[in-house]
Amino acid sequence: MTKYLLVPDSFKGTMSSMDVINIMDKTIRKHDKEAHIHSIPVADGGKGSVDAFLYALGGERIEVTVKGPYDHPISSFYGLVDQGKTAVVEMAAAAGLPLVEDNKNPLKTSTYGVGELIVHALEKGVDKIILALGGVPPNDGGCGMASALGVRFLNSLGEVFIPVGGPLKDISKIDLSELDERLQNIQVTTMCDIDNPLYGPNGAAYIFGPQKGATPSTLPLLDDGLRHLAKTVKNDLDLDYAHVPGSGAAGGMGFGSMVFMKAKLQMGIEAVLDAVDFDQLLNQVDYVFTGEGQFDSQSLRGKVVIGVARRAKKKNVPVIALVGQIRGPLDEAYDLGVTSMFSINTKAEDFSVSRFSSKENLENVMENIIKILGR
Amino acid sequence: MTKYLLVPDSFKGTMSSMDVINIMDKTIRKHDKEAHIHSIPVADGGKGSVDAFLYALGGERIEVTVKGPYDHPISSFYGLVDQGKTAVVEMAAAAGLPLVEDNKNPLKTSTYGVGELIVHALEKGVDKIILALGGVPPNDGGCGMASALGVRFLNSLGEVFIPVGGPLKDISKIDLSELDERLQNIQVTTMCDIDNPLYGPNGAAYIFGPQKGATPSTLPLLDDGLRHLAKTVKNDLDLDYAHVPGSGAAGGMGFGSMVFMKAKLQMGIEAVLDAVDFDQLLNQVDYVFTGEGQFDSQSLRGKVVIGVARRAKKKNVPVIALVGQIRGPLDEAYDLGVTSMFSINTKAEDFSVSRFSSKENLENVMENIIKILGR
Repeated sequence: MTKYLLVPDSFKGTMSSMDVINIMDKTIRKHDKEAHIHSIPVADGGKGSVDAFLYALGGERIEVTVKGPYDHPISSFYGLVDQGKTAVVEMAAAAGLPLVEDNKNPLKTSTYGVGELIVHALEKGVDKIILALGGVPPNDGGCGMASALGVRFLNSLGEVFIPVGGPLKDISKIDLSELDERLQNIQVTTMCDIDNPLYGPNGAAYIFGPQKGATPSTLPLLDDGLRHLAKTVKNDLDLDYAHVPGSGAAGGMGFGSMVFMKAKLQMGIEAVLDAVDFDQLLNQVDYVFTGEGQFDSQSLRGKVVIGVARRAKKKNVPVIALVGQIRGPLDEAYDLGVTSMFSINTKAEDFSVSRFSSKENLENVMENIIKILGR
Repeated sequence: MTKYLLVPDSFKGTMSSMDVINIMDKTIRKHDKEAHIHSIPVADGGKGSVDAFLYALGGERIEVTVKGPYDHPISSFYGLVDQGKTAVVEMAAAAGLPLVEDNKNPLKTSTYGVGELIVHALEKGVDKIILALGGVPPNDGGCGMASALGVRFLNSLGEVFIPVGGPLKDISKIDLSELDERLQNIQVTTMCDIDNPLYGPNGAAYIFGPQKGATPSTLPLLDDGLRHLAKTVKNDLDLDYAHVPGSGAAGGMGFGSMVFMKAKLQMGIEAVLDAVDFDQLLNQVDYVFTGEGQFDSQSLRGKVVIGVARRAKKKNVPVIALVGQIRGPLDEAYDLGVTSMFSINTKAEDFSVSRFSSKENLENVMENIIKILGR
């Protein structure tokens, strides 16, 4: 009986990680009736993380009503896995772009609901929180979330307020005295695949602001707000995280999660692999299949394929990667643990044409690999 | 020690069979120092057949001066293999398109030199001749070759002449009394991958005439000439081969070789595989690698990939095919003996772009296959 472990990333724009898993699974079973297959989906940019963890680990999806990005109540959720000891919170579930529809405004939207999800999880008694960033309109440095957790932001008049992107500059004091004490005893991992600092030309506002609805005239306001937040945090809390790579993720939530929850920032795939105890799974596996839309120099930074390969290499398990395009140096990939990498392109077609055949192309290549392995 | 047998077709327009072999060979040796590799190049459309047979079997290249397509002397050659018992004659060496340069004219060019090569081989005492068709300007139904072998074509005045494309219609009698007697005792195999009849809308003139320089006004003359030849052959020799698939190959040389040399028409790959005793080679092999520029419904007719796969299937040897594009039904290919087929496209690129990366793409995919096999 051959044992397969499937851990593909999404193929951006054509297939979700779950789509890829379904095709790989079906194709393996077609040629190997005895196959034992274990699948671990990987969410794309944070969104879908809860479902991915629930699929991989089992657990419970908890539905909660929280404040949305514009303060009105929304139906949200998080996941409880590991016998209720770990909560998986995806930021997009309480502050995601679809929740604001066409009304994107990083000056006015809040991450408060994310904090409410965390409070709800704390009440469930979790000892670990995995926070998936990404795909959100707010640019509040995590201050909304922090407010829900009990942090008090005061203006120059000594009034408590919940800062959003615009009024970040009005924070004159930060008071942690009422911060939820339960956070002291839990471990928070923030999944974050980018390395932007909090502010400046490569910071949260200038790099990601435009896709959140910021305009050339509001970008400096957002950037100044984050800069002011960093300064106040340094003054009041003596914490200096603004230049930590990833602090600028998700409108500064990378920064906020470090400051207010002592979170550890981790590449998404590493957090997933830790959570599923991947190293242990590898002990019982013959082949690992992974993949992503494009293998390039970015991939070598440790995204899904390389993250998976690095761990498999230590256990000497072969890793076969299926990708949309191979545009990176394969010798380095081999060194990092990839046994073989195949492009799914079965024809000489531009992506504008081939994108519509991604699923059948993936199935085709997968089938031909499985048929070789079966010999 | 793993044993590999490499039998790729050319990738039309980008790589010769020998190019493909060189890349496959180099890539295998990079990852498998102990590899035992046996390579069989397959010539593209007849041209290069002599060199391909000499590479695969060893032997001697015989240089001969013969009459070119326009009757002037040219340096030509054929191959002697199998301890001098088999001659490999490629028609293009005595009547090929490069020999006429810009002066293509199927009405006036002759295959006489091809016959001279055969006579030379007969004098060497061969008992088998393999004739590779293709890539030639004449449209003489093989009458030039036949003339060199002693066949007398007479006009209505009883004068002997050597018919070329135009004057085929002037043949009023065919006399075999002086045909080289040694042909009685030898076996002639004509390598031919097309199935066009001698004349008519799908015949030699209408289908292949334009690429030989025929014009809309001369095509009917060429077609009528071949039709007249067929009629005369039927009247005088009682042979009716004009509708045999392939009789229209190479300006009617398919027909001529059957009529005047009792040749057996055979798919090129089958002739090659027979000559190298492929079935015997398979007994000592772990993997067969083959390939072609495009796998499509044409391929299923029995070109290189399928020709190779069919034989390997009988011996249960896995066949891995690398192709430029997969555009045919793979299930049938599997049924016919292909284990796995991979496209060499590593990126989503149109052929107009990817054609310039064919060699590196082939190397890339080959390497990743070898690395899987090595696990």
